Amino acid sequence: MAIRAFAATKAGGQLEAFEFEPPPLAPHDIEIAITCCGVCHTDLSLIDGTFFGLGDYPLVPGHEVAGRIIALGKSVDHLRIDQRVGIGFLCGSCGECEMCQAGDSHLCPAQEGICVGRHGGFAERTRVDGRFAVPLPDGLSDEDAAPLMCAGITTYAPFEELGLAPGARVGVIGIGGLGHLAIQFGKAFGCEVTAFSGTAAKEEEARTLGAEHFVASRDPASFAHLAGSLDLLLATADGDLPWAEYSNLLRPRGALWLVGFPSQPISIPGIALMSRRSSVTGSLMGSPEQMARMVQMVAAKGIRPMTESLPLQEVNTAIARVRAGQPRYRMVLSNDS
Amino acid sequence: MAIRAFAATKAGGQLEAFEFEPPPLAPHDIEIAITCCGVCHTDLSLIDGTFFGLGDYPLVPGHEVAGRIIALGKSVDHLRIDQRVGIGFLCGSCGECEMCQAGDSHLCPAQEGICVGRHGGFAERTRVDGRFAVPLPDGLSDEDAAPLMCAGITTYAPFEELGLAPGARVGVIGIGGLGHLAIQFGKAFGCEVTAFSGTAAKEEEARTLGAEHFVASRDPASFAHLAGSLDLLLATADGDLPWAEYSNLLRPRGALWLVGFPSQPISIPGIALMSRRSSVTGSLMGSPEQMARMVQMVAAKGIRPMTESLPLQEVNTAIARVRAGQPRYRMVLSNDS
Repeated sequence: MAIRAFAATKAGGQLEAFEFEPPPLAPHDIEIAITCCGVCHTDLSLIDGTFFGLGDYPLVPGHEVAGRIIALGKSVDHLRIDQRVGIGFLCGSCGECEMCQAGDSHLCPAQEGICVGRHGGFAERTRVDGRFAVPLPDGLSDEDAAPLMCAGITTYAPFEELGLAPGARVGVIGIGGLGHLAIQFGKAFGCEVTAFSGTAAKEEEARTLGAEHFVASRDPASFAHLAGSLDLLLATADGDLPWAEYSNLLRPRGALWLVGFPSQPISIPGIALMSRRSSVTGSLMGSPEQMARMVQMVAAKGIRPMTESLPLQEVNTAIARVRAGQPRYRMVLSNDS
Repeated sequence: MAIRAFAATKAGGQLEAFEFEPPPLAPHDIEIAITCCGVCHTDLSLIDGTFFGLGDYPLVPGHEVAGRIIALGKSVDHLRIDQRVGIGFLCGSCGECEMCQAGDSHLCPAQEGICVGRHGGFAERTRVDGRFAVPLPDGLSDEDAAPLMCAGITTYAPFEELGLAPGARVGVIGIGGLGHLAIQFGKAFGCEVTAFSGTAAKEEEARTLGAEHFVASRDPASFAHLAGSLDLLLATADGDLPWAEYSNLLRPRGALWLVGFPSQPISIPGIALMSRRSSVTGSLMGSPEQMARMVQMVAAKGIRPMTESLPLQEVNTAIARVRAGQPRYRMVLSNDS
């Protein structure tokens, strides 16, 4: 049965109602009735044709999917009909390379993305490889789960990977779709979180989310007093930041970790890294195994994305609001069909 | 008794014979009769007054010291008279901060350097804190040990810190004082080493030192075929390299590691790091504990610095040769007095 969806038919265009025949249900596939799908800035880049050359039209965006399993391929034995699951951008990998064998399927050079060469989650249903589905715990609603599939895992993974001890000092640059989750994860991992935002009015909210300190960071002079103090500085903003000044905030062995997309190459004096054995790294997404651990932590610790919801039919309104930076903080499309 | 040494009395000047009274032998100090001292590019920067503002005149350079203990402070109980030891740049730390407590005294914010606020190793004797002395094993000569105290530890530490498994793929950019040691350490750690040099004529030597592959790297096109292949890319050259192209050679989770001093800030597209969860880091020196493990490995594996030796009295000739890049590869001053 054809799947009803919304698609961009040309770069930057409005989304239009679109129907397509799903591919056959392969042995490892599952079919999901989508209840919620988040709207990510990456969806806008895909619609606009500015996401590193990826995406073809017609293009159904959406890579923050939550829903219910309605069909199982014949080889799927770890999931069941009616089970609630989430799907992020990653929906395929070779399974054979060193990355896949090490549990790093999200780093597989042959990885497949849900909106690249197949349609995404702005739709009523989807068929995807069940090995990339994340079972959702009871304590986590579909609306809350959806943004975790991209914004959540992207901000969760650095904490898990660094293995920060409780008490570690963490900075989060930017309080938005990613940053408001990063602050909560930082608190849940027991870290002392400093939030950096160009918007001074966000201080109260940052503290409510779990930040112990707040810096109104329009001017590097505002954070110079934090030099040498941070184990992790998570950059969730996507602008061209004063990287040299920010890198100066790292403690020895500290990491500046990019999770937003800097608009320009980042430029840092080598001595800033060498003298402290500090590093600059970055990541996108995480592995399915990390996602599974994330949703358990979210349910256990009461972490909640701040979301705004609109029906899927109002997808163009939703996109316009995301383009304007209006949602506080994550837009979710809900499917009533 | 006064110590005879050679000192720069002004920025960029020739070194001149110089005598100074050593400080009193403190409880943790040892006095060393210096047999050999390496000449490092950092010494030239110190002489020239261009090393990040450090150094005062008269300045006795030299931070690659090997020699024999001739006096012990009253609290030194882990060393003995006549024992052979080495001393690098690091000769003091607070002992109390988190870095020191974690064995990272070389990252202590209050660390003390041998040529900064005290005189260095272009001298017949020196008094330093014995806790920063590295006992030298029998299989390692003083002339070979001296360059290991800076060039050696700087290139050894990244291998130890990354914990690379045998078979890991390592690139070494630059075959010089640092690079010729890095290739040998890479081989000793069981890695598959690719040497990058702008000088095609160094291929045979690189292979003799242990490199399995060689790239004449004047043009980034020469190494584009290595994209996504390296676990560690050690940059020992001090120029402004094509960082974006080099970072593209990293495998997922790979590290570009600076050990030379880039002349300009390094500039890398964020997506290059994010898409592979790769990193840029850097380091100077290593801890005394790492140095102790290094000299054991060097002795066990037959690693040998390639050195050229001149008497200490010919220090200005030695410096001129280092400035001109003539030694193959490390200049060592020997003390016959």
